[in-house]
Amino acid sequence: MNFASDNCAGAHPAVMEALAAANAGNVASYGNDGLSLAARDRIREVLDAPEAEILFVATGTAANAISLGGISAPWQRIFCHEDAHIETSECGAPELFTGGAKLTLIGGEGGLIDADALDHAASFWAGEGIGGGQPGAISITNTTEWGRVWQPETVAEIAAIAKQHKLALHMDGARFANAVIGSGADPSAITHRAGVDVLSFGGTKNGAIGAEAIVAFDPDLADRMAYLRKRGGHLLSKHRYLSAQFYALLDDGLWLELARNANQMAAMLADGLGQVEGARLAQPVESSQVFAVLPVDADDRARAAGAVYNKWASLGEDAEDALTVRFVCSWNTTPDEVEALIAALRG
Amino acid sequence: MNFASDNCAGAHPAVMEALAAANAGNVASYGNDGLSLAARDRIREVLDAPEAEILFVATGTAANAISLGGISAPWQRIFCHEDAHIETSECGAPELFTGGAKLTLIGGEGGLIDADALDHAASFWAGEGIGGGQPGAISITNTTEWGRVWQPETVAEIAAIAKQHKLALHMDGARFANAVIGSGADPSAITHRAGVDVLSFGGTKNGAIGAEAIVAFDPDLADRMAYLRKRGGHLLSKHRYLSAQFYALLDDGLWLELARNANQMAAMLADGLGQVEGARLAQPVESSQVFAVLPVDADDRARAAGAVYNKWASLGEDAEDALTVRFVCSWNTTPDEVEALIAALRG
Amino acid sequence: MNFASDNCAGAHPAVMEALAAANAGNVASYGNDGLSLAARDRIREVLDAPEAEILFVATGTAANAISLGGISAPWQRIFCHEDAHIETSECGAPELFTGGAKLTLIGGEGGLIDADALDHAASFWAGEGIGGGQPGAISITNTTEWGRVWQPETVAEIAAIAKQHKLALHMDGARFANAVIGSGADPSAITHRAGVDVLSFGGTKNGAIGAEAIVAFDPDLADRMAYLRKRGGHLLSKHRYLSAQFYALLDDGLWLELARNANQMAAMLADGLGQVEGARLAQPVESSQVFAVLPVDADDRARAAGAVYNKWASLGEDAEDALTVRFVCSWNTTPDEVEALIAALRG
Amino acid sequence: MNFASDNCAGAHPAVMEALAAANAGNVASYGNDGLSLAARDRIREVLDAPEAEILFVATGTAANAISLGGISAPWQRIFCHEDAHIETSECGAPELFTGGAKLTLIGGEGGLIDADALDHAASFWAGEGIGGGQPGAISITNTTEWGRVWQPETVAEIAAIAKQHKLALHMDGARFANAVIGSGADPSAITHRAGVDVLSFGGTKNGAIGAEAIVAFDPDLADRMAYLRKRGGHLLSKHRYLSAQFYALLDDGLWLELARNANQMAAMLADGLGQVEGARLAQPVESSQVFAVLPVDADDRARAAGAVYNKWASLGEDAEDALTVRFVCSWNTTPDEVEALIAALRG
Repeated sequence: MNFASDNCAGAHPAVMEALAAANAGNVASYGNDGLSLAARDRIREVLDAPEAEILFVATGTAANAISLGGISAPWQRIFCHEDAHIETSECGAPELFTGGAKLTLIGGEGGLIDADALDHAASFWAGEGIGGGQPGAISITNTTEWGRVWQPETVAEIAAIAKQHKLALHMDGARFANAVIGSGADPSAITHRAGVDVLSFGGTKNGAIGAEAIVAFDPDLADRMAYLRKRGGHLLSKHRYLSAQFYALLDDGLWLELARNANQMAAMLADGLGQVEGARLAQPVESSQVFAVLPVDADDRARAAGAVYNKWASLGEDAEDALTVRFVCSWNTTPDEVEALIAALRG
Repeated sequence: MNFASDNCAGAHPAVMEALAAANAGNVASYGNDGLSLAARDRIREVLDAPEAEILFVATGTAANAISLGGISAPWQRIFCHEDAHIETSECGAPELFTGGAKLTLIGGEGGLIDADALDHAASFWAGEGIGGGQPGAISITNTTEWGRVWQPETVAEIAAIAKQHKLALHMDGARFANAVIGSGADPSAITHRAGVDVLSFGGTKNGAIGAEAIVAFDPDLADRMAYLRKRGGHLLSKHRYLSAQFYALLDDGLWLELARNANQMAAMLADGLGQVEGARLAQPVESSQVFAVLPVDADDRARAAGAVYNKWASLGEDAEDALTVRFVCSWNTTPDEVEALIAALRG
Repeated sequence: MNFASDNCAGAHPAVMEALAAANAGNVASYGNDGLSLAARDRIREVLDAPEAEILFVATGTAANAISLGGISAPWQRIFCHEDAHIETSECGAPELFTGGAKLTLIGGEGGLIDADALDHAASFWAGEGIGGGQPGAISITNTTEWGRVWQPETVAEIAAIAKQHKLALHMDGARFANAVIGSGADPSAITHRAGVDVLSFGGTKNGAIGAEAIVAFDPDLADRMAYLRKRGGHLLSKHRYLSAQFYALLDDGLWLELARNANQMAAMLADGLGQVEGARLAQPVESSQVFAVLPVDADDRARAAGAVYNKWASLGEDAEDALTVRFVCSWNTTPDEVEALIAALRG
Repeated sequence: MNFASDNCAGAHPAVMEALAAANAGNVASYGNDGLSLAARDRIREVLDAPEAEILFVATGTAANAISLGGISAPWQRIFCHEDAHIETSECGAPELFTGGAKLTLIGGEGGLIDADALDHAASFWAGEGIGGGQPGAISITNTTEWGRVWQPETVAEIAAIAKQHKLALHMDGARFANAVIGSGADPSAITHRAGVDVLSFGGTKNGAIGAEAIVAFDPDLADRMAYLRKRGGHLLSKHRYLSAQFYALLDDGLWLELARNANQMAAMLADGLGQVEGARLAQPVESSQVFAVLPVDADDRARAAGAVYNKWASLGEDAEDALTVRFVCSWNTTPDEVEALIAALRG
């Protein structure tokens, strides 16, 4: 009953098999091998983005920081949600890779940036002159840090603001597969067709051992990123092992199948919480994460039964007696585990 | 009738005379001349801080950024007010000199950081682990960006939080002289005796041509700052001309006399606004700046009469029909100018 | 016949098996799982360094840059060989992670820093004052970029200079296993017992898929590095897959066995070159790399026969008609391959 | 008898008068006052560069670092002489303002970069791929750190290499006036007409109190520099006092008159050294600096007589019994001082 994070799940067997298969023989390093080319092509296919340039890295923080470094200047502001992973959990990686750009925090329900507040902030800083820190980029997370989903039209609303202020639009897709399933939309519809310029396409949380793809829909944006990847120590020499993971995940829709399971288990869990007296959802459940407020005794029972999950806090929240927790479902979460968790919580 | 900024005022005659006097002969460069030593001693005296180390620079942004670079690590958070000059007006200088630290913004009335909110934020981030960005320092501005004044006891309240979380405490004193007069307190009482570790001691806005002093009350803190000053291009070779300005300003209390005039003119102006129909103060007037909401016609009349001052906005504000303006009084503002401004506003 | 780089070789079967074994179950992320703890213990054992702190990363560039960032300040100089990988091949990663420190280049035969030149440079810059860029650290590579080996006594000679000038000493051990075999010395004897403070312990080129260990022999040095790793995007969430590689390689001396093969194949190749008319060694062969000057026709024959290897150049070299090439032997290079290469070169 | 540095000389009376004149009244800040506009126009005139964009700063290090930050990327190499001030004396300011670019050092007699060595290095690094650090810019110093002078044709030789490799060309003109006099060429002929893109135009060492101008001959290059100046804390608010210095120096050729005196005094000093037994010039004297090797007793006599000057060393030099010294003549050096120095040296 591990609901702590999808980082705790192992890799899907198909990924492990792909790694083993990729191990044969000597091949070119640094991404010039055939498998790496093929994996990049597969990403272009699933995103319906034949012109896109793709750079593989091993972590989501690297993908985000290199993406942001590629689209902003050191003296600019990057607008993101106040609970964005790039602000709360990456130890200043965006600042390192941008050379010191500012993250300017915007509110919004459930991790979804409030468009009006964004527009107001972008306009304000655009008017503040050289000292103010000019707007440079926007970053949204899909699914959000609260498990919410950006739809084609809500992305487009942000993209319109980006366009108006000449800002680049980045999407942190650490759980992009879950967003595709959660939105019911085509992968292209919530990215480049809606106005996203750069996507951090996550594999790690969806059955890989550690693989993320930076997707620059405008290939010119990739030039700076290529230098930043190398300079950041993120150009893996034995590149085939990164590529093999994406190659396997994108084979025959496996990535979506895995995300579908995680989302379904989350829905089942959310449903089950209705049977736990005193428990309530802290957020609508739209993907693989369930944020809930639990009664203390339910929490005690679940912990005693061996359930693993995290207490959740955000800076804005002031949780006196409330006990907000996060349950993350993974590609390998089973109905039995969810049932056992619900049973333990119910007591 | 120039109330745009104390940056628009020239230098006090005593400063110009001191520059002329300093010009005689060949002397050691880079701060090793006798005048530079004497000027640093005068700062130690007025602050009653015989151990303090002092570094002169030419701008307030340099003083702030070098100070912050000296007391925080690239992966840390520096807490400051959401309207702090270091956040709104320095084009990311703190990020440059700290190597990419984050400014974490705290609210509070009139530019005075809310102590509870600060404590909450410091505690929250201290608990967030390596990814969160650990708390590193606090920066307060005295007088604040809204002309408000930190008193010994309110500084001490912030310092207690700093101490509890092991954070260094910086004071941006671009208008420090106005804060001393405004608070009625001894310069030492609102700085090191209240727990301030590093002070940006401003001269430029108070009658200098361009001179600021970084005061490290703990001299060990100055080591890193000395490298940052040199590396930042802020170690002036013909140092005597920086030092001469402070030497003159600190002579026989001139700096306080100049600040007193500016504060008195602001008080007079605030008083006079009471006679302007429809006008009101946006902030209590505690030093040299007056923030006011004006009726449109009063504003029109003053502009027509040749008054120069700025419309004022902050990100948090949503000023529909209101017209918030800032009047800054300087060391050379005269009662005649204030009267003329009031007369014009009254119509 | 791939002698291009040990980056082109795949992973050893034991590594692949260890990855598969590590895949079972849900475990703690970010290095807090049991396998990660065990792998770090194995490193402490083989280095006989029970106090050492170990941080795993996926690339050698990351290991080097984080190590250097942990032991130097932005305003310092890091002394390294003019052909050092950190200078020639990492796109400024050390500059990124140190916040802009300088690499000061020292000559020396075969990639071995000349101790006298180092001493001279360290003394010179120590005397140059604040503007000069004070000495901060030394980095040596073992085996060197030219396949040469640092012995306990030659490392100690550098360490004595480090000690005298209070500099930290880093060893880039991207091919550390080959250095251990090549030197015939104990792993501890060419590292901490000789005065090395931080080691980049390479796994990738020696049979891993991508795993390097930063070894801080003084554990206090690891604090800054932990932040730099996170901030650099190098803290892999599913950490077990990094750890598993080292765990397997260090099992029962496998890492040394693999390096021994590579070194033996290089010796065999060097020996065989004696039979190639007009060919000569450009460097004594002390580990897994063979640098040779080839006649054009021999080069043509080998390429025609399908041999893969790189022309080699360094900035200092002025190779008119000479044709310097590099052959890298790997853990999986076979005697048959070496014989085939020699046969092709001989014609 | 102060020959230590032109930093030790005071300011020319005309500069002091200009400061006093500039002090009248309230004016716009941050360079938007009339005097600042006029001073920038005067620079365009003397350089015959009507399109150039000019940014004033207070130090030469700032001028150099901002210039270099404006024309290179963090992952690039900037080629400069191994004795260049930006390498030896600025504490890593170029690294700070470029975000970590590398200074790649080139040899050459008397501080004049050897064109062949430069071409070789630029070609080499251009061929080294993404990891190598691509060439980005070249910086030359005129007059050089050894008092030598770049002529229109030698600048053009460097510029041709810059053009071939698509590198920007910066000239550090901390002693630009001395270079104009020393070369006998028009200011435009040794800058933009010869292919220089950006000039650090020094005023401080030539009679100012502290004023340097960044001259971007291609005005588009100034955009990034404007942000870097602000972000670096180098946009002086009371800008008129910077501008007044250049305005005065450029009036009626005063800047050239002052440099002519310094150069003439150096020539006189060089001539006089011929009468000092055992003394010899270490460099041809082409501008205001005299590098000489002195017998110990001559040095002793001069010091005893109160002469102030510096022993000079460079990393490349190995001066066993030799005693190399530097005499710097300034705008205010007099024939009497030179004669007294020679008399003391002769004994």
